[in-house]
Amino acid sequence: MSINLKTYNNSWYNPGKNAIIRLAWYITNSIFFNSYIIPISSFKVFLLRSFGAKIGIGVNIKPKVNIKYPWKLTIGDYSWIGEEVWIDNLDLVTIGNNCCLSQGCMLLCGNHNHKKSTFDLITKPITLEDGAWIGAKSVVCPGITIKSNSLLTVCSVATSNLEANSIYRGNPAVKIKDRIIEP
Amino acid sequence: MSINLKTYNNSWYNPGKNAIIRLAWYITNSIFFNSYIIPISSFKVFLLRSFGAKIGIGVNIKPKVNIKYPWKLTIGDYSWIGEEVWIDNLDLVTIGNNCCLSQGCMLLCGNHNHKKSTFDLITKPITLEDGAWIGAKSVVCPGITIKSNSLLTVCSVATSNLEANSIYRGNPAVKIKDRIIEP
Amino acid sequence: MSINLKTYNNSWYNPGKNAIIRLAWYITNSIFFNSYIIPISSFKVFLLRSFGAKIGIGVNIKPKVNIKYPWKLTIGDYSWIGEEVWIDNLDLVTIGNNCCLSQGCMLLCGNHNHKKSTFDLITKPITLEDGAWIGAKSVVCPGITIKSNSLLTVCSVATSNLEANSIYRGNPAVKIKDRIIEP
Repeated sequence: MSINLKTYNNSWYNPGKNAIIRLAWYITNSIFFNSYIIPISSFKVFLLRSFGAKIGIGVNIKPKVNIKYPWKLTIGDYSWIGEEVWIDNLDLVTIGNNCCLSQGCMLLCGNHNHKKSTFDLITKPITLEDGAWIGAKSVVCPGITIKSNSLLTVCSVATSNLEANSIYRGNPAVKIKDRIIEP
Repeated sequence: MSINLKTYNNSWYNPGKNAIIRLAWYITNSIFFNSYIIPISSFKVFLLRSFGAKIGIGVNIKPKVNIKYPWKLTIGDYSWIGEEVWIDNLDLVTIGNNCCLSQGCMLLCGNHNHKKSTFDLITKPITLEDGAWIGAKSVVCPGITIKSNSLLTVCSVATSNLEANSIYRGNPAVKIKDRIIEP
Repeated sequence: MSINLKTYNNSWYNPGKNAIIRLAWYITNSIFFNSYIIPISSFKVFLLRSFGAKIGIGVNIKPKVNIKYPWKLTIGDYSWIGEEVWIDNLDLVTIGNNCCLSQGCMLLCGNHNHKKSTFDLITKPITLEDGAWIGAKSVVCPGITIKSNSLLTVCSVATSNLEANSIYRGNPAVKIKDRIIEP
């Protein structure tokens, strides 16, 4: 068998809001998020909440951030979203408290069934527990949980869950050592 | 010996069109491709064809795509060009039918001779056969052929040809298993 | 212990210029550097020098470049800054003569102490000696020196110093062979 994208059908997928709201967010994202205009984090938090995101206090959102669907996004208190971070949340993304998404990293919720000629869409949620740190230019794959205080180093790819209090590196990311946190 | 970029000379390179057309494409690419404006794929296909690209039917082009030279680009039927894909086609890029270029991936046709103080430009074509899937944030290097239905996983780097019906991962990408496609 | 970003304090950090100048650069960077507007390298060199960068002759700066602080940047003669290069120079970045920063690469000067609940900011300088070549989409980590004529290949991550006249690959990058340069 070969891939046949003419038969691709994602009509079952529920984006969560109607086309008008999705278009309004598309424009909002392009003007105020994936740009340098108005680098005021509180204003962006206000916009995200207006579109249905649940955002805690003290959250810091840098310029050039790309978010797919705010209504599928939860961020806890005092978490940071770095420059050029891409939250491609076709599915739910839940970010805990005190998390850091470093510059250029990506949370990737979408995949396709590589075994089907119809290339069926697969979406899975991503969870970052409290204190998780996603390094610069790294990628978290669909369905992954980054347990509390774990660290994915620069340019690494999380293809399985990251255990708590651990440091992971590589593609696929493997544990290289414990992360012990002192006051 | 040391590198001496003052002696760099790429005057032999043929970009394929004159400076006026290249400038017109540079502006078109910046306004309509590597942007969020007018997210209508058929309009982009029209523009690409106007600049000499050969594009099949049912092709889907997402926002924020960066294409160097459309007159060096061929895309078959029902192929997808994802968000933030970068086709840096200093040389010919030939994409077959039913291919998927996932978000953030790069097709890189340019290199330099690292053994020469003059850092000579090297360009080589890239070919994606039918059903090839280039994963998110992965890179295909100059001269590479991705054979039919092969898959380069997220953040991997294809530095040699990918055999057909196979899944490759890593930097450099190595085969990790077969890709068997069912209806 | 857990991470507590409410206690984060980077007030000791010296960005090198006052808030007005930093804002002026932020706007300049967004309009003239990380964009496609005015793709004339000499104009960008003029702007960088106006903001305190030390730039040699024959330097070539491509579109879509992102530079944090020009007053913390030194570039020698005949070096190239490729498209979508990100110089995130919270600390000093010193680029020698005849260096090539290929498209999409990143020089990353900022880090955090992963052992401290306060997530203390750490910045370290990066040095590229003459003839260094940073490959497409690769990353140089804080504190690293790329010695003369060394090459970091596509999508690799330099987490320790690169010896002279050597080729490094992977994450973390390891030496794979010598780089011997002929006329």
